[in-house]
Amino acid sequence: MQKTSISESVVRRLPRYYRFLSELEKRGKERISSGELAKQLSLTASQIRQDLNCFGEFGQQGYGYNISALKRQLRLIIGLEGKRPAIIVGAGNLGKVIAANIDFGAFGFCLLGIFDIDRNICGNEIAGFTVQHINELRTFCEREKPLVAVLCIPQEAAQETAEMLISLGIKGFWNFSHGDLNAELDIVQVENVHLGDSLMRLSYRMSEGR
Amino acid sequence: MQKTSISESVVRRLPRYYRFLSELEKRGKERISSGELAKQLSLTASQIRQDLNCFGEFGQQGYGYNISALKRQLRLIIGLEGKRPAIIVGAGNLGKVIAANIDFGAFGFCLLGIFDIDRNICGNEIAGFTVQHINELRTFCEREKPLVAVLCIPQEAAQETAEMLISLGIKGFWNFSHGDLNAELDIVQVENVHLGDSLMRLSYRMSEGR
Repeated sequence: MQKTSISESVVRRLPRYYRFLSELEKRGKERISSGELAKQLSLTASQIRQDLNCFGEFGQQGYGYNISALKRQLRLIIGLEGKRPAIIVGAGNLGKVIAANIDFGAFGFCLLGIFDIDRNICGNEIAGFTVQHINELRTFCEREKPLVAVLCIPQEAAQETAEMLISLGIKGFWNFSHGDLNAELDIVQVENVHLGDSLMRLSYRMSEGR
Repeated sequence: MQKTSISESVVRRLPRYYRFLSELEKRGKERISSGELAKQLSLTASQIRQDLNCFGEFGQQGYGYNISALKRQLRLIIGLEGKRPAIIVGAGNLGKVIAANIDFGAFGFCLLGIFDIDRNICGNEIAGFTVQHINELRTFCEREKPLVAVLCIPQEAAQETAEMLISLGIKGFWNFSHGDLNAELDIVQVENVHLGDSLMRLSYRMSEGR
């Protein structure tokens, strides 16, 4: 499986393909042509074929894609069969929503614990986890070896906390703190979530043709 | 200002440009070359020039971009100077986080109210708003004329609620309910937020080179 130099825009579309195929499978559909897939996703058929060809040969000329088979392949490509141990750092409102609403197992992760610096929050139960104090992180990481940290902390604390977490063995961040983590952190993977970007896109589209 | 047929990928990058320029301005920087901008954003200089050329002539050969001026232009282009009246539908944990953490004013929106179907939640104070029952939506919309709805409700309820809201004059959705809203809703703008897609991208990158 050739996985090097896949462009950022292909990586960006993979989850959409996966989501859409899951939807089709749920509706009992068995196969779909690249043309039909393209139409539904507002892409071109050749783009879809090119994207998928980055990872191997899927689909058959004149037959289209077998939905379940392609979905299974995408699970492997995206890494959804993994069980990467993860922790949430920050148990405020955002941390709570993430813990309660994100099915980490469905995305190849396994949530191990939730941490906060605020002693008033520590001890609370969130999504079946007891919030632990951040001082316990070192011991926890040595024992449980989490690889991923979900950062639900204020921007001011994010960089320093990230560096500390890297020293404890964290290899990937799902970062909800405003502001990107410093690019010097390129020994790890960082996925920054910018809800504001999404809201700006809505703003732009609503302004278009105004 | 030529705003038609701007490609989806340009629209996707606009908020990043805006965010990054704001950051530079905060740090007291006055101008930046497209090359430097490109390096910082992991894009190419020609891509940045092309993107910005969609909207007009910015920057000067050999001088680069004036950061404050370009940022001001992007504000206008993205529509951040607007005051689009918005409501949040769904006052559970997610609705609460959005209400409390998103500075709608900074993105060209103005939050007017929060609604929920659960009478046990109605009457609660969230971010300075008293949660109102969904039955009061019609009267509220007739009076306040919100244009945007932030959907923080379960997927099962999303489509039906969206249709009702459109009939009440809503023109844009910021949709946090899992699953895209039906494309038939193309008389309105829909920005779907898929946190799972973001988590899948992290999963993919952590699997790469494994």
